[in-house]
Amino acid sequence: MEIVGSSKIRKDAFDKVTGKARFVDDYKRGDELYAVTFRSPRPHIKIISIDTEEAKKIEGVAGVFTYKDIPGVNKVPLVFDDYPFLAEDVCKFYGQPIALVVAVSKEIARKALKKIKLKYKELPAVFDPLEAMKKDAPKIYGKDNVFRAYKIRKGDINRGFKEADVVIERTYRTNYQVHSYLETQGMLAEPSIDGSITVYGTMQCPFYVLDAVSNILGIPQSKIRVVQTTTGGAFGGKEDVPSIVAGHAALCSFLTNRPVKLIYTREEDFDSMSKRHPGWINIKIGAKRNGKITAIKVKYVLDGGAFATLSPIVLWRGTVHSTGPYDIENVWVDSFAVATNKVPCGAFRGFGQPQANFANESIIDELAHELKMNPLELRKKNFLDIGKKTATGHLIKESCGLKKVVDKITKISNFNKKWKDPQNKKGRIRRGIGIATSFYGVGLGAEGKFLEKAGAHVQIFKDGSVLVAVGNTEMGQGAFTVLTQIASEILGAPYEVVNIIEPDTTRIPDSGPTVASRTTVMSGNAIINACKILRRRIDGVVRDIFNVRGKVISKNGYYYAGGKRISYFDAVKECYNRRVKMAEQGFYRVEGTTFDRKTGIGDAYFTYTYSCMVAEVEVDIELGTVKILRFYSGHDIGKAVNPKLAEGQIEGGAVQGIGYALYENLVLEEGRIITNNFTGYIIPTIKDIPDDIRVVIVEEKYPNGPYGAKGLGEPPLIAAAPAIANAIFNATGKRIRSLPILPEKIVFQE
Amino acid sequence: MEIVGSSKIRKDAFDKVTGKARFVDDYKRGDELYAVTFRSPRPHIKIISIDTEEAKKIEGVAGVFTYKDIPGVNKVPLVFDDYPFLAEDVCKFYGQPIALVVAVSKEIARKALKKIKLKYKELPAVFDPLEAMKKDAPKIYGKDNVFRAYKIRKGDINRGFKEADVVIERTYRTNYQVHSYLETQGMLAEPSIDGSITVYGTMQCPFYVLDAVSNILGIPQSKIRVVQTTTGGAFGGKEDVPSIVAGHAALCSFLTNRPVKLIYTREEDFDSMSKRHPGWINIKIGAKRNGKITAIKVKYVLDGGAFATLSPIVLWRGTVHSTGPYDIENVWVDSFAVATNKVPCGAFRGFGQPQANFANESIIDELAHELKMNPLELRKKNFLDIGKKTATGHLIKESCGLKKVVDKITKISNFNKKWKDPQNKKGRIRRGIGIATSFYGVGLGAEGKFLEKAGAHVQIFKDGSVLVAVGNTEMGQGAFTVLTQIASEILGAPYEVVNIIEPDTTRIPDSGPTVASRTTVMSGNAIINACKILRRRIDGVVRDIFNVRGKVISKNGYYYAGGKRISYFDAVKECYNRRVKMAEQGFYRVEGTTFDRKTGIGDAYFTYTYSCMVAEVEVDIELGTVKILRFYSGHDIGKAVNPKLAEGQIEGGAVQGIGYALYENLVLEEGRIITNNFTGYIIPTIKDIPDDIRVVIVEEKYPNGPYGAKGLGEPPLIAAAPAIANAIFNATGKRIRSLPILPEKIVFQE
Repeated sequence: MEIVGSSKIRKDAFDKVTGKARFVDDYKRGDELYAVTFRSPRPHIKIISIDTEEAKKIEGVAGVFTYKDIPGVNKVPLVFDDYPFLAEDVCKFYGQPIALVVAVSKEIARKALKKIKLKYKELPAVFDPLEAMKKDAPKIYGKDNVFRAYKIRKGDINRGFKEADVVIERTYRTNYQVHSYLETQGMLAEPSIDGSITVYGTMQCPFYVLDAVSNILGIPQSKIRVVQTTTGGAFGGKEDVPSIVAGHAALCSFLTNRPVKLIYTREEDFDSMSKRHPGWINIKIGAKRNGKITAIKVKYVLDGGAFATLSPIVLWRGTVHSTGPYDIENVWVDSFAVATNKVPCGAFRGFGQPQANFANESIIDELAHELKMNPLELRKKNFLDIGKKTATGHLIKESCGLKKVVDKITKISNFNKKWKDPQNKKGRIRRGIGIATSFYGVGLGAEGKFLEKAGAHVQIFKDGSVLVAVGNTEMGQGAFTVLTQIASEILGAPYEVVNIIEPDTTRIPDSGPTVASRTTVMSGNAIINACKILRRRIDGVVRDIFNVRGKVISKNGYYYAGGKRISYFDAVKECYNRRVKMAEQGFYRVEGTTFDRKTGIGDAYFTYTYSCMVAEVEVDIELGTVKILRFYSGHDIGKAVNPKLAEGQIEGGAVQGIGYALYENLVLEEGRIITNNFTGYIIPTIKDIPDDIRVVIVEEKYPNGPYGAKGLGEPPLIAAAPAIANAIFNATGKRIRSLPILPEKIVFQE
Repeated sequence: MEIVGSSKIRKDAFDKVTGKARFVDDYKRGDELYAVTFRSPRPHIKIISIDTEEAKKIEGVAGVFTYKDIPGVNKVPLVFDDYPFLAEDVCKFYGQPIALVVAVSKEIARKALKKIKLKYKELPAVFDPLEAMKKDAPKIYGKDNVFRAYKIRKGDINRGFKEADVVIERTYRTNYQVHSYLETQGMLAEPSIDGSITVYGTMQCPFYVLDAVSNILGIPQSKIRVVQTTTGGAFGGKEDVPSIVAGHAALCSFLTNRPVKLIYTREEDFDSMSKRHPGWINIKIGAKRNGKITAIKVKYVLDGGAFATLSPIVLWRGTVHSTGPYDIENVWVDSFAVATNKVPCGAFRGFGQPQANFANESIIDELAHELKMNPLELRKKNFLDIGKKTATGHLIKESCGLKKVVDKITKISNFNKKWKDPQNKKGRIRRGIGIATSFYGVGLGAEGKFLEKAGAHVQIFKDGSVLVAVGNTEMGQGAFTVLTQIASEILGAPYEVVNIIEPDTTRIPDSGPTVASRTTVMSGNAIINACKILRRRIDGVVRDIFNVRGKVISKNGYYYAGGKRISYFDAVKECYNRRVKMAEQGFYRVEGTTFDRKTGIGDAYFTYTYSCMVAEVEVDIELGTVKILRFYSGHDIGKAVNPKLAEGQIEGGAVQGIGYALYENLVLEEGRIITNNFTGYIIPTIKDIPDDIRVVIVEEKYPNGPYGAKGLGEPPLIAAAPAIANAIFNATGKRIRSLPILPEKIVFQE
């Protein structure tokens, strides 16, 4: 291997640093119109009437559209169909879209927005998921406000607790987290010929957008083209939400027969876009005196907001990972995604795991404290490994580098030497060290198996340059660099001549969403499948030219066979002379998950990555401020296709995890977000992150991954918060059980 | 077959008749610049200096570019590399591009154009190809001004003439023909991210444009996207020429980093764009008294204009067809494409055949007259058929419907009854009937064999709608309708849900040009290859659902197997549930031509179509005007995938052939076109064409064609002119040996 495993320059680096990259708002059409959204002014209302007449009269307004103008189906297609593109009779959260104004400028559109007259009646609202689960709560969804419930029943939970020498029970809470992508939501829709429409925009999941546009317009999918533009960050926030924005833009374009741009302001984006679910997690855990955990019981509640969006699946991922990377015989989990009159929550890096992991890795530390054990030793006694089973009874048969990761991280962080019982620490400024671990099921898993597939198009031009297209997206994570490296490696083509084009739903069949750290495995394998066919053809021509048999080896831009060599470019030229087919569609799908929803038992994912993080903190116990001195983050990812990019992902995840742990605090009043910009909602700056983030990569190859790779997008965030909370406890003896760990919580904690 | 063979509505009909179709000039970008071309003011000059300083100073001018600004190679890539994108030291024709002005409006660009100061020295020019072949002629190309020469040497020409009872020799001339597409040449180039560029425009051959843009910019082909926009006619005129326009637009966009539009005016289009080559054809033919032709000797000269463009290949097609659809034992052909100081000639429907066919089918008539035979009888004695050989010795083994076509056309036209010796006709208004035949090698043939391939992308969406993409273009000929019918038939998908997307060089590998009536066979077979794979997968799922074996039949939107049925849409849904790969790249190539350039002998094409036309005319011998009373056009095309569209092609060809025969007269003075618009250059209007054009389609299946189809684009024009010339002779006894047959030629002919 020459290309895979080497730190090639990012394919998009130059354009992004020079400003050449074109985001959706950079696309100009000359005759485009601008749309803005009229939204619910209150968290729960019954609509009596919407009067758009005055708004329509304003000069420059091309249209004001309500649900009545939708030619297709007024449902955002996702897990459920509960979310209307435009409200009909009720609104369930502050900011829910009711109407769209289209005008020749944003200013005119906003002016017209103010002329829309909404008559409504307030309905009782509920904002807390535990309240919402009560019998007499206002009803937002179904009979009980529960979007979905899962359970896991493994072993005999009562026997497990009976066998325990120590049993503790704790409750943890986590707050929202906002994706804080630099580029807000935005779409440009324009009519194409033949009644068809093209939608350009910032997104993670072109095929979700395709479903949405097809739904709202009621036109066949083959007449719609969804094209991802350069995407300025996503982190899950552009998984489901772009379906709404695209649906709105497409509707406006379809009804006006003009290009229409719909770009959100930052405040609008905060108000209406999905967030990480606030979580409420109660855990009871029991262990033998020697540290062997005998039973764990978890109740896990997610605050879903007003519509289901991805909550059922977020809940599922959180559920199956809720007991941590441990082999525990007796497991009992109940989990609920609950409706409240707030902005719908959705996908966010980690997808239900950070909440559960914060609780689980905190209680493990609390258990160690009760047992008077070093928390690392307690963990080691219970870790998953080859031959062990997850909470859902998934027997780990391969590719488990958890112990290696933990050993390396605790070695470089000198964990055991630095870890001291907090009781002994004195003074205003106190230092501590904390550890947390996690595992992460790669891909969509059993509950998303129908989408677990991906396509790829690979085309070699006669000048030898290569074009790759996939159905998954680049959103800053480096996917396109990694995928071109894989194509380059298989084809034997120089990395520099392999290019990748933006995703377009008319190039590749539905490849599922770009989520769940699945892109390297899924799109990577689809590319491999296409490239192998092409390579077989090239090899045949090379053998034919040399009149030899046997294997053709590619190295340094040459093919070698029978002691002779020909350059890649000459070989391609010869393939063209012979009219060899030089384009292929690759495809990949994964089989084999067995999870059973009734019992919560079965193989939940096709493979797992394993992570360990250590944080060293310095706490000012008078001010309650926390400084992260050093942060260590280690991951078994099977194979780092591009080690530098992997490091970047890990560092970025650490920073986002630090923000989640310490700073990011969305504040709502009566269901309305009041910290709806970066003045009110604080994310870490360069000043807030440790100078020293140390990265460890372990490569326990996953046999079905491209060159052994698993996935890396999300794990770097997951265990950060508990590692920090555990370090704060280690420094101060104060156990903070809710995120973010604001200074006041430390100051006022007993 | 349900779909193939039925006259489905054109896929593009609705958009074209309602004005919804978007041509390149309809694309707006808001920030686009406009380019205009500075051209040679004389037919042959040596450039001393180009001063662009004053032009650059005009407000709103973004750039003035000459060959010095080209980052890549200053050669339009085609058969030869003689044509520079922008002139360097010499210009060889009036209108040759020298510089490009880019400005914020067309008006400013045109204003700036006038400020460019060109210093030059006139060089001696030559305008007649026979003059240009003389030793002392001014040199335009190489040592002898001959771009290419071909020869055919079959049998013993001297013995052939010795065996003849009658030998005649005649010389024929044909004039230019202008494509007269409604939409002039035009391109929009815009920068994409990553230093890449997208070119949209009216074109036949996206991959030629790709080569051109890659050449002029010096960037890899995978970083260029060439997209064909709705094309308002082409007829060969958008085969090679768009490479220049696209190269210019791309250069301007690349150098200004802005979208740039370059749209030609009608006059500019006339002045600088390729035309049908004027031809000079001398034929000597000998036959036995019984009508058996024993020998034919042809000298065939094409006026290529200043640069080679496609002249070598146009010449070749004309050469191998120059002796007509006859089995003649002794053949001698010499042909030359010659450089002159005029606009370069290029591709035009028929591609060198109409010139040769006019000569050949005229001399057959003249021979019949000499032999005092009915010209139909003479032809029948010599026609090609299964077991006979073409001029290049190609043994016809299959799919030869010539006799059937001739029998049907002469029967419905009542030819033998109407045909009377012209000597007996009297009066000012005289009626006559004429016949001509032709054959046509489908596809690029031996001299274009490296390009004889095509790709296709077929993708089935989960709602069952289908997207097809090919590398060949729709330019009005109906290709997209025919190709979707083929996809629909194989897949068993309703025709209405099969859509086709505009060609884009990043979707499909080089599929050769959209010329030579090759699209149905080439792209059709590529689609079949892709669809068959998809269908095999669907059939497998259907069999699995029904738990049966054996063949799955599709009919009326259902799949039938084992006595059960499932709808197409349900079957697709089930395929999606099973994550079946629902997209494929098809590919097709043809082998088997054996033509040898040295002897002119061998199989020139993979198959031939056969045509017969009959014209009935009424001639006013005082005014010299010709009225076509009735026109009969019959063709063996293997299979009419869409009979109505085939009829439309045949009618359109007849009209264009009538224009070529009677009206279209490009006039040049000193190498400059003076009839450079539709006021000066007359094409037939609705008033000039017969009310009654009768069409005959014969289907002698070509085993390797899609459902037996061969090709139809060009044959409907080829034999029109000689049929009319023969009819005029039959009416008046006047043999007009040059095209167009203007009234004065009839009046002043002895």
